[in-house]
Amino acid sequence: MSKQTQTGTKLSHLQQRLFAVRRRTTELASHLSDADATAQSMADASPAKWHLAHTSWFFEEFLLAPAFGEDVRFHKSYAFLFNSYYNAVGARHARPQRGLLTRPSLDEIRAYRAHVDAGLMKLFAEGRAPRELIELGIAHEEQHQELLLTDILHLFAQNPLKPAFLEEAQRPEPVELAARSDWIEFPGGTVRFGHEGDEFAFDCEGPAHDQLVSSFELANRVVTNGEWCQFIADGGYNEPRYWLSDGWDTKCAQDWSAPLYWRREGDVWWTMTLSGWRPVDRQAPVTHISFYEADAYASWAGARLPTELEWERAAQTVPLMGRFADSSGLRPGLQTGSGVIGLFGDVWEWTASAFRPYPGFSVSDGAVGEYNGKFMSGQMVLRGGSCVTPPDHIRPSYRNFFHPDKRWQFSGVRLARDTA
Amino acid sequence: MSKQTQTGTKLSHLQQRLFAVRRRTTELASHLSDADATAQSMADASPAKWHLAHTSWFFEEFLLAPAFGEDVRFHKSYAFLFNSYYNAVGARHARPQRGLLTRPSLDEIRAYRAHVDAGLMKLFAEGRAPRELIELGIAHEEQHQELLLTDILHLFAQNPLKPAFLEEAQRPEPVELAARSDWIEFPGGTVRFGHEGDEFAFDCEGPAHDQLVSSFELANRVVTNGEWCQFIADGGYNEPRYWLSDGWDTKCAQDWSAPLYWRREGDVWWTMTLSGWRPVDRQAPVTHISFYEADAYASWAGARLPTELEWERAAQTVPLMGRFADSSGLRPGLQTGSGVIGLFGDVWEWTASAFRPYPGFSVSDGAVGEYNGKFMSGQMVLRGGSCVTPPDHIRPSYRNFFHPDKRWQFSGVRLARDTA
Amino acid sequence: MSKQTQTGTKLSHLQQRLFAVRRRTTELASHLSDADATAQSMADASPAKWHLAHTSWFFEEFLLAPAFGEDVRFHKSYAFLFNSYYNAVGARHARPQRGLLTRPSLDEIRAYRAHVDAGLMKLFAEGRAPRELIELGIAHEEQHQELLLTDILHLFAQNPLKPAFLEEAQRPEPVELAARSDWIEFPGGTVRFGHEGDEFAFDCEGPAHDQLVSSFELANRVVTNGEWCQFIADGGYNEPRYWLSDGWDTKCAQDWSAPLYWRREGDVWWTMTLSGWRPVDRQAPVTHISFYEADAYASWAGARLPTELEWERAAQTVPLMGRFADSSGLRPGLQTGSGVIGLFGDVWEWTASAFRPYPGFSVSDGAVGEYNGKFMSGQMVLRGGSCVTPPDHIRPSYRNFFHPDKRWQFSGVRLARDTA
Amino acid sequence: MSKQTQTGTKLSHLQQRLFAVRRRTTELASHLSDADATAQSMADASPAKWHLAHTSWFFEEFLLAPAFGEDVRFHKSYAFLFNSYYNAVGARHARPQRGLLTRPSLDEIRAYRAHVDAGLMKLFAEGRAPRELIELGIAHEEQHQELLLTDILHLFAQNPLKPAFLEEAQRPEPVELAARSDWIEFPGGTVRFGHEGDEFAFDCEGPAHDQLVSSFELANRVVTNGEWCQFIADGGYNEPRYWLSDGWDTKCAQDWSAPLYWRREGDVWWTMTLSGWRPVDRQAPVTHISFYEADAYASWAGARLPTELEWERAAQTVPLMGRFADSSGLRPGLQTGSGVIGLFGDVWEWTASAFRPYPGFSVSDGAVGEYNGKFMSGQMVLRGGSCVTPPDHIRPSYRNFFHPDKRWQFSGVRLARDTA
Repeated sequence: MSKQTQTGTKLSHLQQRLFAVRRRTTELASHLSDADATAQSMADASPAKWHLAHTSWFFEEFLLAPAFGEDVRFHKSYAFLFNSYYNAVGARHARPQRGLLTRPSLDEIRAYRAHVDAGLMKLFAEGRAPRELIELGIAHEEQHQELLLTDILHLFAQNPLKPAFLEEAQRPEPVELAARSDWIEFPGGTVRFGHEGDEFAFDCEGPAHDQLVSSFELANRVVTNGEWCQFIADGGYNEPRYWLSDGWDTKCAQDWSAPLYWRREGDVWWTMTLSGWRPVDRQAPVTHISFYEADAYASWAGARLPTELEWERAAQTVPLMGRFADSSGLRPGLQTGSGVIGLFGDVWEWTASAFRPYPGFSVSDGAVGEYNGKFMSGQMVLRGGSCVTPPDHIRPSYRNFFHPDKRWQFSGVRLARDTA
Repeated sequence: MSKQTQTGTKLSHLQQRLFAVRRRTTELASHLSDADATAQSMADASPAKWHLAHTSWFFEEFLLAPAFGEDVRFHKSYAFLFNSYYNAVGARHARPQRGLLTRPSLDEIRAYRAHVDAGLMKLFAEGRAPRELIELGIAHEEQHQELLLTDILHLFAQNPLKPAFLEEAQRPEPVELAARSDWIEFPGGTVRFGHEGDEFAFDCEGPAHDQLVSSFELANRVVTNGEWCQFIADGGYNEPRYWLSDGWDTKCAQDWSAPLYWRREGDVWWTMTLSGWRPVDRQAPVTHISFYEADAYASWAGARLPTELEWERAAQTVPLMGRFADSSGLRPGLQTGSGVIGLFGDVWEWTASAFRPYPGFSVSDGAVGEYNGKFMSGQMVLRGGSCVTPPDHIRPSYRNFFHPDKRWQFSGVRLARDTA
Repeated sequence: MSKQTQTGTKLSHLQQRLFAVRRRTTELASHLSDADATAQSMADASPAKWHLAHTSWFFEEFLLAPAFGEDVRFHKSYAFLFNSYYNAVGARHARPQRGLLTRPSLDEIRAYRAHVDAGLMKLFAEGRAPRELIELGIAHEEQHQELLLTDILHLFAQNPLKPAFLEEAQRPEPVELAARSDWIEFPGGTVRFGHEGDEFAFDCEGPAHDQLVSSFELANRVVTNGEWCQFIADGGYNEPRYWLSDGWDTKCAQDWSAPLYWRREGDVWWTMTLSGWRPVDRQAPVTHISFYEADAYASWAGARLPTELEWERAAQTVPLMGRFADSSGLRPGLQTGSGVIGLFGDVWEWTASAFRPYPGFSVSDGAVGEYNGKFMSGQMVLRGGSCVTPPDHIRPSYRNFFHPDKRWQFSGVRLARDTA
Repeated sequence: MSKQTQTGTKLSHLQQRLFAVRRRTTELASHLSDADATAQSMADASPAKWHLAHTSWFFEEFLLAPAFGEDVRFHKSYAFLFNSYYNAVGARHARPQRGLLTRPSLDEIRAYRAHVDAGLMKLFAEGRAPRELIELGIAHEEQHQELLLTDILHLFAQNPLKPAFLEEAQRPEPVELAARSDWIEFPGGTVRFGHEGDEFAFDCEGPAHDQLVSSFELANRVVTNGEWCQFIADGGYNEPRYWLSDGWDTKCAQDWSAPLYWRREGDVWWTMTLSGWRPVDRQAPVTHISFYEADAYASWAGARLPTELEWERAAQTVPLMGRFADSSGLRPGLQTGSGVIGLFGDVWEWTASAFRPYPGFSVSDGAVGEYNGKFMSGQMVLRGGSCVTPPDHIRPSYRNFFHPDKRWQFSGVRLARDTA
């Protein structure tokens, strides 16, 4: 990755963005106690404290230490404790043990963040801040902001007291309805997709390239909780014929009968949210479902999931607007309006596409090259961001990916079908 | 699946093929004792006796019972014992328990086969044999012939006595060399691929459709054992940077340091074959490697795996010939000659492609529709057949698939790269 | 262990006993197919073929090889394949893999047995047969006769066809009733227990020593299936207060709600026996229960288990008679009569005593010393033999032992209580 | 359990003891952060916060609620969250999930403690404090004080920063030596043991009763770290002949090669202590060993473990003094002097005795009866208390118990042997 030196006005915008993002991460943790920030509720999740530290380590490791030498490091053990998966930069603390690091404390990690911020300011002041790595660091930190929220939700959901991350005034139930379900047709042809241009994007979003696409139809909005209840009521979780073989095995092994966090109390489904324990809103998008469930739902509905190419084709036709972390109350809301709606924000949309490299993709050299390429097996692509995604983080070409059995992200589903 | 009634000459050819395949299955088991045919060495494998019974159950379930009624069944429990994964036709005996079925005996299963053969003959005699289902049954049985061999190899490999399935005259070591490694270039453009026409093919091989392909280069032959030894010697199994993340985790968890069945004795690698315990032949294709290992090897070699489309494009340019189960001594042999060689036979070639549906694919109705579609997650495509594949079983469009960590098939690797 | 040389008349009795036991083992396997004798249904069990081979290996290893040299061995791999737990004599084939040894075949193992028998005859002919080791070998082989039966029962129970080991004429249901339940009082005092004298006994049965015993009461007979049904009906499997903590955890983890092999069909409990699938006989002793279940039953019944000392004290007062493998139809039968009945045979009786060394016990030197001492942790003592125990195998001092969660032996329960 | 009403002077002593113990628990946690007090390092351990809450719940459940009614409870969820294993009083929060309770916070739990203390004071003021339950509550809370320390040690040992619970002035290495190893003989005879009299003791310590004991010899002190190093150097961890069978399996599965917490750095063994990471003191008692290791050591040393009866017999001859939590720096220290020394304090001593009921023992009615009886399987008795045991907690008749594979307690070993 070539290092450019920043100049004049544009840089100052970069600097502003960087410190805004850094601040936002710290603010997210302001709701949390030392204990909240330390616990790890499963191997897939990380403690909030770890997210705070790891995103700082990223800058320390790839920017500060190269620029100022090893003495710049805040603590000699932190590289070991807060490296995540970068094998190239040395040994790492075992992932499932992260929740046992009661020391350093949350306050010490806050001091670590301040230390790294000071180093970054110095880098800018000396005109030595490498644009590309800083943009990567911003995008990386935004990803961890989102994970911090999904991981805290998972942690709080394990607590019988069902604490709320976000205290919120009790609102009356919404009277609005989601848009009526409809199909939108897209014609076939040769389409250019993937990221191009100078703006930042992750390596896996390119190279841009042409593909032949057949015409297809896409649902105007994502599936709602109410529709999901029909799937449940119709025995969708008990009929192997709707399910992929691996999906059925997973469903049986993990005993799924509803989305993660749902629990029936009498006649009402309740669910865990970042505002605590609440009744399921039937008009809102279904979320916390796995790829396997999304696929089974599509089979039940006589439809299929869109490929990531189809999704991107549709996304090229709409403005990049949606309910993100800044405007959502940290949960998905009603999708209303006409045409294709809600592609961005609310819930990540599972696609039919395995996360594999685009034609011509190759992994960058060095540790930063470990970013995406090595995850290109066994995972499925999700598109569009969610209600906990930072607002400037998403692009039409953005490819998120998770294993098909994962449910703790804000993942939902939009249907597609072949043109009749 | 519509049922056609057979007529005249063509049918008699179908009949001949059917009984030739049925006979071949029985012959494969003639080397085996009752105990050999009963044991199950891991959950992925099945006992030989089970393969013999299950392929017969297929015809009993989908042809004989519909034609002659339930009384035609050989034994009322066999549908339960020998159904594999067809959820639509009822409960099944738990897969990992197959090796505990010491009864029925191998002789009883041979009698079962004869009973089903008699029923099939009657079906032909009465002119009621449905061509499509019979062709599917033939292809299905051929698949199980191959699995019977890979499963027996796995079983015998667990036995410290290392028994040979195939006794063979001791041959002098081959003096011939594999072809020198080379790259063959293929130009880009719009290519039609997938199966079309009236000949039998599995549902997942279609629909035929056009795709844009960039120009690419393909290795003239598959990777040899000698080349794999260099990968080992160069620390390929110890360098996470070559590996996909899931691959590295699997490698560590399962403690891989060489292909399955290899063991070093002094300076020499030995391996298990269907002819027993033998030194590894450095000129022969490497086999019994996982997708993860194939991918790591390609990274180490500065190349990549071909996509299934690239592989198929190359396969469209060569005759459908190779070392299959009828001519191979049941192990892969030297690939010699010029141009692209060895695409068919010897070893299944891992591709870069996840096993997902082609555009326009949809699952057939009923139990037969469970054939391939439900496996379309988490698996990678392999192409070309192997030294234990029945000779008439393969087509350029043939898509085999296994999970990326599986190694007990005759799976190997051919490199590809982008045109410079 | 000092080796004595046999002389004159007494020896010929030993010789007769040895070959009678050897013959009986071979006969037990005459009901079995090659496959039956090969399969292993769980890690705790061994294949019948393995029992046949291991008991022969014992004589080969400890008698023939020392007397005649290493060349006497039937096959160089058998010491590796058929050593069980004698660490002192070298590496062993992994226990859970025993079921994968489809070779050597049952016929080869029969030949192995004949080979070892010939060697033993030669040893006698030459007057070099060491009495103590032969007595140990006889007792050892008798133990494996019993295990062969319990292991085959477990294997056949896994088979949905529920095959019978022992074909038996269909008998009308017994009209007799078990003896009425009663308490027998035994006075306290200083009691001598443990084995003494010249007759063979296992090392763990001694040294003989005195102990103080309080007076106690013992049930006249073991608990019946009918009584166990009352325990079930009264919610005994659902009430943690009856259970030891480890027992409750095990019960929950393994989902126990009745003895092993029981299954309810409509209103009737059925169970697996060596004569196949049969209705549970309410008058017969309950069997295939764990220590945890026995203890929970006793709590429910307001009683307790007897200590092994109490059991032995009672056994010193009755003749050594009971329903053993020679007279039992290989299942426990009605206990009738007056006084303390059924102490020997029918079912092994769980005691309240952990299997620990008697005062003054020490382990013998060498491999034979590995016999019992190293199992003296985590196991509970059972007393009295069962319906599948060879008739001459039992003594009042005989201590059998299993982990408290094991259920595949013919284990039952007799109650005790403190004198009011 | 009959409830007595306290009267006059004696009561005030009880009251003093109770609140001293309550205060001590709170003080123990004063070293801990909210995060320290929340984390759970393994299923066997509990968070410090949980210990603080559970010991308060005990008084709330068994004293305050019965006396003052349900409204006295601090929080309606706490009975669910902080009940440990008392099945009789309702559902419990899953043990391995305790570390995920980031709420309630440590401060809230401190408030809970104050609330319960206030209730207890009221109970005394009203003359309604039941002596027996209070004595049980004191003993219970003392047990949890000890567990809090062993659990924190385990947690801190998982942290690569190796934090110290107890900051301590760096001391020069001790120059003193442990007493020379010696044997002390005890004559045989009829001995009375078990608890008798009015002083508090746990139910499992009685009934007192007579037993015959043979003469035996006991080591004058426990085994030291230096002696343990010889065991390691002599291959003690690699020789199956020293080990119980279950012990060897556990050792292999868990890959033991030294006591828990030991790690070799160059030529020096280091270990984790409550004062942080320190070199192993060769003169101090070995600790954090399992029963299996203790037993293997004894075999290697040509000795055996004492039975709990032998231990108690010796303990009846010495004053009840030792290095407990008040005087030990929270780690075992040198045992010096003549005669039998160090029986109390320093390290719990594994005995040869399984934890089983004494003759005539029976479980009390109700939830308090769940105290010890239900743990009477699979565990071994330890005697004498340790350096983290509260000083007034121990008696000669005191029976502690753990599963034989556990190592996180301060457990050590003293040898015994039969009189020659």
